[in-house]
Amino acid sequence: MSLELLILGSNSAAFAHRRHHTAQLFKLQDQQFLIDCGEGTQLLMKRNKVKLSRIDHIFISHLHGDHYFGLIGLLSTMHLFGRKKELILIGPPGLKEIIQLQLRHSETALNFPIDFTEFKPGETSIVLDHPKYNVTALPMDHRVPCSGYLFKEKPKKRRINRKMLPEVKLSNLDIVRLKDGEDILNEDGSVKYENKLLTMDPNPSFSYAFFSDTKLRPELQKMIEGVDMLYHEATFANDMKDRAEQTYHTTAEQAAQYAKEANVGKLILGHFSARYKELDPIINEAKAVFPNTELAIEGTKFVVDGK
Amino acid sequence: MSLELLILGSNSAAFAHRRHHTAQLFKLQDQQFLIDCGEGTQLLMKRNKVKLSRIDHIFISHLHGDHYFGLIGLLSTMHLFGRKKELILIGPPGLKEIIQLQLRHSETALNFPIDFTEFKPGETSIVLDHPKYNVTALPMDHRVPCSGYLFKEKPKKRRINRKMLPEVKLSNLDIVRLKDGEDILNEDGSVKYENKLLTMDPNPSFSYAFFSDTKLRPELQKMIEGVDMLYHEATFANDMKDRAEQTYHTTAEQAAQYAKEANVGKLILGHFSARYKELDPIINEAKAVFPNTELAIEGTKFVVDGK
Repeated sequence: MSLELLILGSNSAAFAHRRHHTAQLFKLQDQQFLIDCGEGTQLLMKRNKVKLSRIDHIFISHLHGDHYFGLIGLLSTMHLFGRKKELILIGPPGLKEIIQLQLRHSETALNFPIDFTEFKPGETSIVLDHPKYNVTALPMDHRVPCSGYLFKEKPKKRRINRKMLPEVKLSNLDIVRLKDGEDILNEDGSVKYENKLLTMDPNPSFSYAFFSDTKLRPELQKMIEGVDMLYHEATFANDMKDRAEQTYHTTAEQAAQYAKEANVGKLILGHFSARYKELDPIINEAKAVFPNTELAIEGTKFVVDGK
Repeated sequence: MSLELLILGSNSAAFAHRRHHTAQLFKLQDQQFLIDCGEGTQLLMKRNKVKLSRIDHIFISHLHGDHYFGLIGLLSTMHLFGRKKELILIGPPGLKEIIQLQLRHSETALNFPIDFTEFKPGETSIVLDHPKYNVTALPMDHRVPCSGYLFKEKPKKRRINRKMLPEVKLSNLDIVRLKDGEDILNEDGSVKYENKLLTMDPNPSFSYAFFSDTKLRPELQKMIEGVDMLYHEATFANDMKDRAEQTYHTTAEQAAQYAKEANVGKLILGHFSARYKELDPIINEAKAVFPNTELAIEGTKFVVDGK
């Protein structure tokens, strides 16, 4: 089990320097989540050999075009390719209205149902709850309602220590109990085998936080404490700190400081301003503060597979 | 003076075989008209070194996504690049509502005004009238309200025969009169110089017709009789004639027969179905009927500069 993040696009407002608008594919367990969907995302997916049919969840952070103008085209292509299964779409208020208006004018009834969830601006709330993981919307501080997302695996079951199995006789029910952390008892209620004798600690539960367009969010630091990977926007380097402040964005140094304080495993920086043809200023100032930082270069795959 | 047509994208519904959605740049006199704007058009414009600032008119044929999903992104980029001058946008009913809804949710007030004209479905009407040319919306026969466009230069003024100028004495007013086709008169009203002695025929007036998604339109044949260039959709080859009929599209052979009967100068075929990886079936069956046919291959420039 691991986390995997594939960067599809990572530029801010304007296409530039062969960099496209925000889109990324996050893999957790057997699911692939598309996060943001700028114009041309379906072309970038094709280029990166991503199968549309594997995607059952799309998360949109906010309604600035560089984060969602590719969504309606992607939905149309899914329809054209005969998709039947439900798609879960999570995004800001207004997204549903926009999609529905466009479908109405094209007189298209999609072949597949969309389960829309609109996050509540300003609120931290669980927007997807699965037996094995959940996703929490984290309110960003941007010029329009905007949400980041925290993907978190739930605690896993204990693992049976196979080396011990020849030594003991266990029923299937015993195995289930052991995985749940229980001891195996004799009929009189006394302990037959202590759990820790026959099991090992669970595999780690991974977590990933996506921080879309935002000023720094110290209020959320506790929520993301210790995540394995944090994607944080870094539209500017620190020389443009004032501009970042005015436009509700973050600098690379600020993001790195934040990652350090939140004790995250790895930091990925993206959403670069078109003013940076070369991204050296961004990565250099971040690494000086938080060495395990990488740039969200398109086509790059970041894998986290152990603690 | 000439016509120039640059093909940006030419595929139908799905991106395929490195072919993108419909978009083309038509140049007439000193104007550049963008016709249709599928997703990714701004990327294709960049690739073809088209300057956004040169475009003051955009024509959209209909609200199927492969013809307009790139428009909102293009407008946003124009805004971002600081455009101030008015943009004339001509398209189907509903387009304005869609654009305005998206701008509202991104809390964007464009830096430049848009002059929206929505064509009346089913009606042939002049949607742009300029002293030197006009553009007529031509109702297509498709599944949703859809319009083609006929671009037509108005008759030009007669040209002064420079060889004769040393022989005669003319005022500036005389020159204007001659260009307008009038004779030069003596004070008593008798003819001093016959117009045809001092002038030559005007330069030809060019015309271009764009037929977006449609079944054959015999009703419009008279309107486009003798145009210099006709772009006609040819989604299918003739082996898919039934499918073309069902989906309100045209086959290459049908389009060629139509071009032949309308006596057009040149025929460009586009809007290819993704089922055709190679376009030989399309071009071959068309050329058999109308030899001066070409395929709308992306990046190709078609120039008409004389009769």
